[in-house]
Amino acid sequence: MSKVIKNGTIVTHDRTYKADVLVENGVIAEIGPDLKGDETLDASGCYVMPGGIDPHTHLEMPFMGTYSTDDFDSGTRAALAGGTTMVVDFALPSPGQGLLDALKMWDNKSTRAHCDYSFHMAVTWWSEQVFNEMETVVKERGINTFKHFMAYKGALMVQDDEMYASFQRIGELGGIAMVHAENGDVVADLQQKLLAEGNTGPEAHAYSRPPQVEGEAANRAIMIADMAGVPLYIVHVSCEEAHEAIRRARQQGKRVWGEPLIQHLTLDDSEYMNKDWDHAARRVMSPPFRNQKHQDSLWAGLQAGSLSVVATDHCAFTTEQKRYGVGDFTKIPNGTGGLEDRMPMLWTHGVETGRLTPEEFVAVTSTNVAKVLNCYPRKGAILPGADADIVVWDPEKTKTIHADTQVSAIDYNVFEGKEVKGLPRFTLTRGHVAVHDGELRSQEGHGEFVKRTPNTATNKALSRWKELTAPRPVERSGIPASGV
Amino acid sequence: MSKVIKNGTIVTHDRTYKADVLVENGVIAEIGPDLKGDETLDASGCYVMPGGIDPHTHLEMPFMGTYSTDDFDSGTRAALAGGTTMVVDFALPSPGQGLLDALKMWDNKSTRAHCDYSFHMAVTWWSEQVFNEMETVVKERGINTFKHFMAYKGALMVQDDEMYASFQRIGELGGIAMVHAENGDVVADLQQKLLAEGNTGPEAHAYSRPPQVEGEAANRAIMIADMAGVPLYIVHVSCEEAHEAIRRARQQGKRVWGEPLIQHLTLDDSEYMNKDWDHAARRVMSPPFRNQKHQDSLWAGLQAGSLSVVATDHCAFTTEQKRYGVGDFTKIPNGTGGLEDRMPMLWTHGVETGRLTPEEFVAVTSTNVAKVLNCYPRKGAILPGADADIVVWDPEKTKTIHADTQVSAIDYNVFEGKEVKGLPRFTLTRGHVAVHDGELRSQEGHGEFVKRTPNTATNKALSRWKELTAPRPVERSGIPASGV
Amino acid sequence: MSKVIKNGTIVTHDRTYKADVLVENGVIAEIGPDLKGDETLDASGCYVMPGGIDPHTHLEMPFMGTYSTDDFDSGTRAALAGGTTMVVDFALPSPGQGLLDALKMWDNKSTRAHCDYSFHMAVTWWSEQVFNEMETVVKERGINTFKHFMAYKGALMVQDDEMYASFQRIGELGGIAMVHAENGDVVADLQQKLLAEGNTGPEAHAYSRPPQVEGEAANRAIMIADMAGVPLYIVHVSCEEAHEAIRRARQQGKRVWGEPLIQHLTLDDSEYMNKDWDHAARRVMSPPFRNQKHQDSLWAGLQAGSLSVVATDHCAFTTEQKRYGVGDFTKIPNGTGGLEDRMPMLWTHGVETGRLTPEEFVAVTSTNVAKVLNCYPRKGAILPGADADIVVWDPEKTKTIHADTQVSAIDYNVFEGKEVKGLPRFTLTRGHVAVHDGELRSQEGHGEFVKRTPNTATNKALSRWKELTAPRPVERSGIPASGV
Amino acid sequence: MSKVIKNGTIVTHDRTYKADVLVENGVIAEIGPDLKGDETLDASGCYVMPGGIDPHTHLEMPFMGTYSTDDFDSGTRAALAGGTTMVVDFALPSPGQGLLDALKMWDNKSTRAHCDYSFHMAVTWWSEQVFNEMETVVKERGINTFKHFMAYKGALMVQDDEMYASFQRIGELGGIAMVHAENGDVVADLQQKLLAEGNTGPEAHAYSRPPQVEGEAANRAIMIADMAGVPLYIVHVSCEEAHEAIRRARQQGKRVWGEPLIQHLTLDDSEYMNKDWDHAARRVMSPPFRNQKHQDSLWAGLQAGSLSVVATDHCAFTTEQKRYGVGDFTKIPNGTGGLEDRMPMLWTHGVETGRLTPEEFVAVTSTNVAKVLNCYPRKGAILPGADADIVVWDPEKTKTIHADTQVSAIDYNVFEGKEVKGLPRFTLTRGHVAVHDGELRSQEGHGEFVKRTPNTATNKALSRWKELTAPRPVERSGIPASGV
Ligand SMILES: [Zn+2]
Ligand SMILES: [Zn+2]
Ligand SMILES: [Zn+2]
Ligand SMILES: [Zn+2]
Ligand SMILES: [Zn+2]
Ligand SMILES: [Zn+2]
Ligand SMILES: [Zn+2]
Ligand SMILES: [Zn+2]
Repeated sequence: MSKVIKNGTIVTHDRTYKADVLVENGVIAEIGPDLKGDETLDASGCYVMPGGIDPHTHLEMPFMGTYSTDDFDSGTRAALAGGTTMVVDFALPSPGQGLLDALKMWDNKSTRAHCDYSFHMAVTWWSEQVFNEMETVVKERGINTFKHFMAYKGALMVQDDEMYASFQRIGELGGIAMVHAENGDVVADLQQKLLAEGNTGPEAHAYSRPPQVEGEAANRAIMIADMAGVPLYIVHVSCEEAHEAIRRARQQGKRVWGEPLIQHLTLDDSEYMNKDWDHAARRVMSPPFRNQKHQDSLWAGLQAGSLSVVATDHCAFTTEQKRYGVGDFTKIPNGTGGLEDRMPMLWTHGVETGRLTPEEFVAVTSTNVAKVLNCYPRKGAILPGADADIVVWDPEKTKTIHADTQVSAIDYNVFEGKEVKGLPRFTLTRGHVAVHDGELRSQEGHGEFVKRTPNTATNKALSRWKELTAPRPVERSGIPASGV
Repeated sequence: MSKVIKNGTIVTHDRTYKADVLVENGVIAEIGPDLKGDETLDASGCYVMPGGIDPHTHLEMPFMGTYSTDDFDSGTRAALAGGTTMVVDFALPSPGQGLLDALKMWDNKSTRAHCDYSFHMAVTWWSEQVFNEMETVVKERGINTFKHFMAYKGALMVQDDEMYASFQRIGELGGIAMVHAENGDVVADLQQKLLAEGNTGPEAHAYSRPPQVEGEAANRAIMIADMAGVPLYIVHVSCEEAHEAIRRARQQGKRVWGEPLIQHLTLDDSEYMNKDWDHAARRVMSPPFRNQKHQDSLWAGLQAGSLSVVATDHCAFTTEQKRYGVGDFTKIPNGTGGLEDRMPMLWTHGVETGRLTPEEFVAVTSTNVAKVLNCYPRKGAILPGADADIVVWDPEKTKTIHADTQVSAIDYNVFEGKEVKGLPRFTLTRGHVAVHDGELRSQEGHGEFVKRTPNTATNKALSRWKELTAPRPVERSGIPASGV
Repeated sequence: MSKVIKNGTIVTHDRTYKADVLVENGVIAEIGPDLKGDETLDASGCYVMPGGIDPHTHLEMPFMGTYSTDDFDSGTRAALAGGTTMVVDFALPSPGQGLLDALKMWDNKSTRAHCDYSFHMAVTWWSEQVFNEMETVVKERGINTFKHFMAYKGALMVQDDEMYASFQRIGELGGIAMVHAENGDVVADLQQKLLAEGNTGPEAHAYSRPPQVEGEAANRAIMIADMAGVPLYIVHVSCEEAHEAIRRARQQGKRVWGEPLIQHLTLDDSEYMNKDWDHAARRVMSPPFRNQKHQDSLWAGLQAGSLSVVATDHCAFTTEQKRYGVGDFTKIPNGTGGLEDRMPMLWTHGVETGRLTPEEFVAVTSTNVAKVLNCYPRKGAILPGADADIVVWDPEKTKTIHADTQVSAIDYNVFEGKEVKGLPRFTLTRGHVAVHDGELRSQEGHGEFVKRTPNTATNKALSRWKELTAPRPVERSGIPASGV
Repeated sequence: MSKVIKNGTIVTHDRTYKADVLVENGVIAEIGPDLKGDETLDASGCYVMPGGIDPHTHLEMPFMGTYSTDDFDSGTRAALAGGTTMVVDFALPSPGQGLLDALKMWDNKSTRAHCDYSFHMAVTWWSEQVFNEMETVVKERGINTFKHFMAYKGALMVQDDEMYASFQRIGELGGIAMVHAENGDVVADLQQKLLAEGNTGPEAHAYSRPPQVEGEAANRAIMIADMAGVPLYIVHVSCEEAHEAIRRARQQGKRVWGEPLIQHLTLDDSEYMNKDWDHAARRVMSPPFRNQKHQDSLWAGLQAGSLSVVATDHCAFTTEQKRYGVGDFTKIPNGTGGLEDRMPMLWTHGVETGRLTPEEFVAVTSTNVAKVLNCYPRKGAILPGADADIVVWDPEKTKTIHADTQVSAIDYNVFEGKEVKGLPRFTLTRGHVAVHDGELRSQEGHGEFVKRTPNTATNKALSRWKELTAPRPVERSGIPASGV
């Protein structure tokens, strides 16, 4: 059954124009004036945009014998409710576990997804098995992005030499390296010091992960990626220090992308000073929220293009789970929600204020993600042949964010009480109208895995440059050739 | 008569894919597999890209009672020969001359154009007449860009207060401010000093316009544009100093674009040290060529996105004209050619080396220009409905640049002897095949003026932000209200 | 009558040690253990430091037919009360007035000084007379510093070409250029715009002089000084933008010094939002107070050495005088006090917090000033033969700053209510004990003019470098020498 | 027997003046006009300056079963010949060896010293023993500086967590942390990769240690020092990347010093491209020489004050020793000479060119070293009571550097053939005239160990600031305190 989106204004990352959109068999069949279909979606007064893509989620992530509360069911429903039509989750092997083995677990969990999804593969330890399986992950499983944790010492963290080896392997495979950038050694020591000094509350979580440790790690990852000749994607850039390292790298021609989160763009570290322990603990994530100076830096980065995409790191734990850390902040599960609110919050604080144009909004919430991760223009585009992942955005629609009316499965919302202006009227996932005039009509299991191939144009260009500038031996006849 | 471009790989600023292109009535009618038309252009092994747009030319520019040698005839033929399908020239009023009066002169000259063109309007003096005519220029003549010269003291140069007034006016009209950024006071003094010291040769031209004077002026223009709340486009960014000012501005959320020239990207200041006076004098332009450090900065800027487009400032004077300045470098007419070689030189030194991807090449030579100047996607796009300004680019085709085989009317070429790899097989201007398998078949007078409207999304966003953050009076009851 | 300062710890810009100081005939006669003199000043528990030097004051400055209220009498008494033993004031010619003529007026006013003083000469207009008199000012009057106003359009402001000419002249004379850095054209326009929009209160003074206009002017002055080959001293650096320009210049080997004021280090722009008009108007100075970000930048500059000295720009107007500007902020006389409080405020917020060491405190309040202005070690030193300008500093002494107990002649204090820790026990001016255990015993007319000679080592080094790197003509035989 | 240095011009880090200097019992007894002594040294036409202090040498350093060739005998003779009167060497424990044990070895070697010396203590592994002995090293042995190697994996290198633990310990003891900053993991991998690719020559040494790995490590050490609250001294800063990290840190108020070497200031990486293997191998040191861009950065750093001292890292291996690495660059012993030439080379390229003033020369070669390392003003000063470590510098004396006329024991000189202008006429070490009119008359065993105490003013200030800004727990009543 075909559908036509009528009377809207199409906004993509590079143009804005009035046209109807005809959707057939889950893809965009035609774009133009006066189109007709079996069903009509009225987009009067609305922008018709590529559905959001969240490049960074953790749905049903294992943690201390339990799981993050939003799974591929509630998580992708929340996504759709907020105009996001694709998520990219992280397959996380336990230390010693094979990559393919871990992927199977994520395959299982993701069968419930209401929208399309893809995976990043995490490299949490290093061995010949990991080295070998990386090839299969890229070539057979359609995953070209590998994440490394520079923090979480004793758990997910890898050492510099492991990271360098992995980055070189990624380079050979034409993939993209990713890092969670915080100096795990220093964080671990700071945690112990803070606990020893009686700093046990959630605010100490922020104290233990200051901007300096993030900036340092970002800078280090950039150097290692440069030496390995591989493009680098730095997740959850929260501070000026990390952003500065990225800017500096880009100004040397390095291929580095930075991903700020909607939380860091709109919330600050005063949240951790809240007298209510629950309030503070619910905001515990890594990196923590920062102050105004850092927020300004992130916004400017989106404007200038030195930061590329906006994500959520959605990893939702209930208050009950958060309370594991009463008396010891290091036991508070790390993570906050955001999937449902990323698009409205960014529109409200970005487009409504004039910091971003609507086209830039589309770029950072969708198109840039699809381009960097290599699923454009199947995703992130309003083009004939593209998947019909579309959000019909009503810029006049408003609401106040409340936990008790949200789709996400957790019992609170870090944006509680915030007014937003700009919300989905319709959200389509591969043609299915998952949000209809604000009403959620999504289908469990509708989502499919999106393969992403390696060897992007960026990989090729970088490799060419590295070859051109590679070390060459000096030719000498007779060595050594001289006396004094 | 329809034409179909077959078997090529389409490359736009955001995607690369195999498809044929059907051209009818001067526009792109269809894109897809297996298209048919009356005439077939074989693009096997080629990239099908938006024709280049040169945002900065001076064709038949009046100078000392004569004119720059390439006019809208030879200049646009040279453009097409090199894959460029649109030029934007500068209408330059003499001091005291009205804007509309000057435009008439440019209208007359441009009737001979072989490809489409548009104009920037220069503000070379300030008065109520200028203020008033600016509105007509924008609303009736379809020009939204206004250029200001911060150098050429006693001729085109405007003072800070004039520039600030003009920028505010542009802001009201929804236009974009442009500047030639060099501190004209200091240049004028340096010129006199150098002449007095016996530095009369063309190398003294470079000495008289060091990077510092360009960086200073760029920085000043940025501040004034910020105060006026208007987007700013800085032409011919040649050095790290100006680039640094632009980067710094962008990192504060300012809307500033920088335009490096192909000459500054690929030639350096050692040219002025040539023992052959003619060799050096032919390279005299403002700003002059710079050293390797500055070139590296410009390339990195294109890679990082802190610089946006590549132009030529094509303003071609013959050797005979250059020799006006024998014995006094200040009399050497300023300007070099480049229109014919911009695309091949940038492909060779950018794409072939891996510094730029093919998509980035399209962006900086065409699409970004069209977007910033607001004629996208009529220009700069391979999309149904877009003008059929297309270059079929053969990445394996090579040549050595020689003045005696060039299309441009001047008697030398600043790129003489350079090998290029990557050249047009076909160039189409609104559907007309102006270059056919390397053979020039362009038509005098085929070119049309391209109107460009004001109030871009960037203008609107910037204005909104400026309103939000505008000064507000403090409310006081009783003034003054206190004793000590 | 000799005096000995006993039992104190001497702190200079480069060392800290216990020793007594013997003073005879106004100079330091001896430093060592167990010294004896006719009179003993007990420095137990105190630091014995070079008296402060304020490089930037405006005592009895003419303004709108009246004068700034603190003159060389009350001003220098206030200085001594706060531990400052020398001030450097600005001789300001009216437009058209000769330099020597203006100096005579300042000679007359300064006869009342209680402590030593020197003058900077202002260049407020340009002519052959000014050019010629500059030599006399340097060679006969012992003044090697020339100040230029880039703001105050229509009054003191000079144009770029005038400034460049003056800077070159200063270079020839071996002097040092100084600037008040704000873009006067933009300020003037902003003032008119703000008034027109009903922004008439003192907060509009801050709106009219944002950090951008200061940063721009600083950057411009630096470039012009670089072209002229002259060292540059930028007064009242209030913001990150100007500081950034200075840092950038210094990192290119340029000889530039920046002078933050104690007001900008410790007060912020929220003062202008005060509901009390008088409160806000009393803080009106140029540049205005800035926010925390800028304060942090200034403190770090003092720590890093990118900023060199701390001054006051003391220019004190009474509340009555400030009220000239009721209804029109542009008529509020610009200037605040600070002479009396500079040293205690800097000690409290610098040394007590650990941002500065005591030696760094001495450097930025005294020794660096003497070195840059070329009166070291006659001033700014605790060395045998140096003038006995000494402050015996009690780091445990505290007070709360109140206008009603101050020495300054004005009726308020911008630091009103601030607690300070660290105050003079004794202040000696050329051996005379002007402050005795907190009691003021200064003598009108005791102060003498301090000559400062040109051609410092910095001048010589800079000139040598400029010669080495000066433009050289290319030698050519036969010009032009070639055909195509 | 007293000596008087007559008719010279004294130049210290802060002043220049004519005076005689009387030396008695190894210290400066008096400074003034017309002094008399038993022996007269004629300083006519000369500058009388504090003897140079080289903060970074490796005399008789153990390496692969042999030792670096210059020992405390030949090394300190070379030092004196070039005007350097004190060296600070590194006591290097083998992994597992105690600190005090290692110090004993250095005590033994240094008995032959001809000039005074001190030691830095290296922390090359981590244990409770090391932790405990650090206190003894500081309190009993008079060493307040602890060096850490971030490179030399498998040998001297320490991990981040060890470094952080050590830095915290240093902070408690009031000491100063030092690092050799290169990322050892990446260097080790690059070495293997280069060898595997057939890059076996000395140029591959440079390829294996690019500026990026140095900049990264410098940045990391700065962050760790900041977290530990300890001042940091970065040895042999060779490149813009490391310098940039230092500048950035200093601009955040961090207490970081950078030490460029005379080699990096005056020699570049083209040396490694020399066709003569010996020529290249003799220049092998870590970090390697860099290109012009980096040199410019280092010079500007000295001018701006962002870099503090100039050293040599003197570690001299003979050609024979260098040849251990024929066929495998990783086996070439790392190190070059410089002790003898540091002062003349810096004078020639710094003062003679106008980049540095004579006072700045004294600061970076002597006084700053003494201040940072805490032996000022016993060393680094021309003051009564200071050790008579004095160089009488003849600015007109010239020579061409040749290995066959040098004092150093090695068989070549990296500055071979360089002309220098500015050489010692006399060098005094604690009053002994070790160089007399160019003739070396030094005494083996004359040199004494210089104790350096902890808890400098910088330590105290930093600690105070860290206390003030330390994390504070939020006070909460009832945890958790809320529902949703
Ligand atoms: Zn993470
Ligand atoms: Zn995550
Ligand atoms: Zn121009
Ligand atoms: Zn132009
Ligand atoms: Zn001023
Ligand atoms: Zn002033
Ligand atoms: Zn080392
Ligand atoms: Zn070393």
